[in-house]
Amino acid sequence: MSESSITSVGIDFGGTSVKLGVCRGGELLTTDAPIPTAHFAGPAALIGEMAARIAKLRETYPDIAAIGVGVPGLVDFDHGFVHILTNVPGWKHVPLKAILGEKTGLPVVVENDANAMAYAEFRYGAARGLNNVVALTMGTGIGGGLILNGQLYRGSGCAAGEIGQMSIHFDGKPGHYGNLGALEKYTGNKEIAEHAVQRYAEAHVQKTLEECTPKMIADAAKAGDDIARQIWDEIADWLGTSLSSIAWLLNPDAFVIGGGVAQAGDLIFDPLKRKVQSMLSTVVWERLQILPARYSNEAGIIGNASLAADSIV
Amino acid sequence: MSESSITSVGIDFGGTSVKLGVCRGGELLTTDAPIPTAHFAGPAALIGEMAARIAKLRETYPDIAAIGVGVPGLVDFDHGFVHILTNVPGWKHVPLKAILGEKTGLPVVVENDANAMAYAEFRYGAARGLNNVVALTMGTGIGGGLILNGQLYRGSGCAAGEIGQMSIHFDGKPGHYGNLGALEKYTGNKEIAEHAVQRYAEAHVQKTLEECTPKMIADAAKAGDDIARQIWDEIADWLGTSLSSIAWLLNPDAFVIGGGVAQAGDLIFDPLKRKVQSMLSTVVWERLQILPARYSNEAGIIGNASLAADSIV
Repeated sequence: MSESSITSVGIDFGGTSVKLGVCRGGELLTTDAPIPTAHFAGPAALIGEMAARIAKLRETYPDIAAIGVGVPGLVDFDHGFVHILTNVPGWKHVPLKAILGEKTGLPVVVENDANAMAYAEFRYGAARGLNNVVALTMGTGIGGGLILNGQLYRGSGCAAGEIGQMSIHFDGKPGHYGNLGALEKYTGNKEIAEHAVQRYAEAHVQKTLEECTPKMIADAAKAGDDIARQIWDEIADWLGTSLSSIAWLLNPDAFVIGGGVAQAGDLIFDPLKRKVQSMLSTVVWERLQILPARYSNEAGIIGNASLAADSIV
Repeated sequence: MSESSITSVGIDFGGTSVKLGVCRGGELLTTDAPIPTAHFAGPAALIGEMAARIAKLRETYPDIAAIGVGVPGLVDFDHGFVHILTNVPGWKHVPLKAILGEKTGLPVVVENDANAMAYAEFRYGAARGLNNVVALTMGTGIGGGLILNGQLYRGSGCAAGEIGQMSIHFDGKPGHYGNLGALEKYTGNKEIAEHAVQRYAEAHVQKTLEECTPKMIADAAKAGDDIARQIWDEIADWLGTSLSSIAWLLNPDAFVIGGGVAQAGDLIFDPLKRKVQSMLSTVVWERLQILPARYSNEAGIIGNASLAADSIV
């Protein structure tokens, strides 16, 4: 796919704020000041503010031709309908596409945020030009998005890509849904911190949870701390188990990994690649890349804007 | 997709014999006597025999318009090229599509056998009318095929669907590739037998491996043997862990399960459904069906014939 020449708005709807930007061909032309969700009583007022912001942006960018919104929750993509956003009060059964489309007169697409991130990496980021891509965002939880045969794969209920809920141990730690061995109960930021505190305690080193963020463990490892290095190897073992299972199932071209854990760089990517290779056949491994994400905070805006632009061609 | 009106030949290339049949619209019109692979010295002679058999079938079915061949190994689908069949001597780097196409003058498709089985179930079997389907064949190993967005998904190197190699335990039993926790090392027929012998031994009952086939364990459970029931529950736990991980990743409409284990019927399907439900969110579970395969031995012929017929419309 070549670069889009369409100008579009990307909206990254987070738990506390809504960020807007204008993109063309994967380039972020401008970003608007974030809208704090708490300032607006319910969906109607907040969508009204989005429309007002878009109207203003169109004064500078009159060629804006489409709007893409990514939300932190379950959507019905075909109808642009938001089922529920658990972290945003009042957002339940909202026909976002219909309302925003009516207020702006522009075509609107509504997508899950992890899917939008995957699309940004596929279309203009680390996985550009590849056909089958699995993207992960690692933070408190682990989200994922799939590009299969060059298209976003959403699954039967727009709920695909929940990599953090996949099991790495049939009798392991229960996840949010009681699902034993859920990956994010091993490699979510909180669980990494808990594990690190325990590993240090075993070596008679006292650390608090606050001292064991991915960044701090990475800094410690870089400074020569053997325990910190060992923790990264363990994270690589757990995460690599999931990635190799996904690779056996989907035989993809690439994994793209973003979020705090990915920022540890070689500390995580080196043992992770070794682990995944050790779990695969040559045929599956030899076409597989394991890549850090190109985008971070701007992934949502670029992904949603690109989805919107590509939806009208 | 409606029933195909095209008549086509399906060829199911197994480790010891090659089976041929003529199909139309998912219906098996006739089958030919199997060709024993050992009677033919190498690919050229065997492909010659296939072509001769097809010529004969065309005397009765002059409207045969395409040929589909499924092989037990890795293929390049786009080129109809067989990389290697580990169980059939001499089958390495064989341009099967080109040779068989030239000998018959008909369009030929070459597919992996597990993919062909998945296609048969999707097109005319248990998963007919569904869009996202994961099919498993359980025997010595566990093969799989994926239908995503209404199409066979092959992956970047035509190697997708290796469900038996996915891990259910990050520190579990090593699979064929050294991959820790490989599902088929828990639920392959041989491993089930070994596990059963051990479970019986713990209860001071002596059984041989030969007395612990899936069928025998199913018969024992039906006759009221508590140990046998417990074994089925354990198989359901292991298999269900894999299925739930796949469901989180792909949010499919259905799993279709064939092979010896599936023939245990409710003994496996009841605890399997309970296990998978216990591992999923309502959203993912509520659209998910777990179904026994419709086809058994004829799956290969019907799947390959259907792939060939659908490839020329």
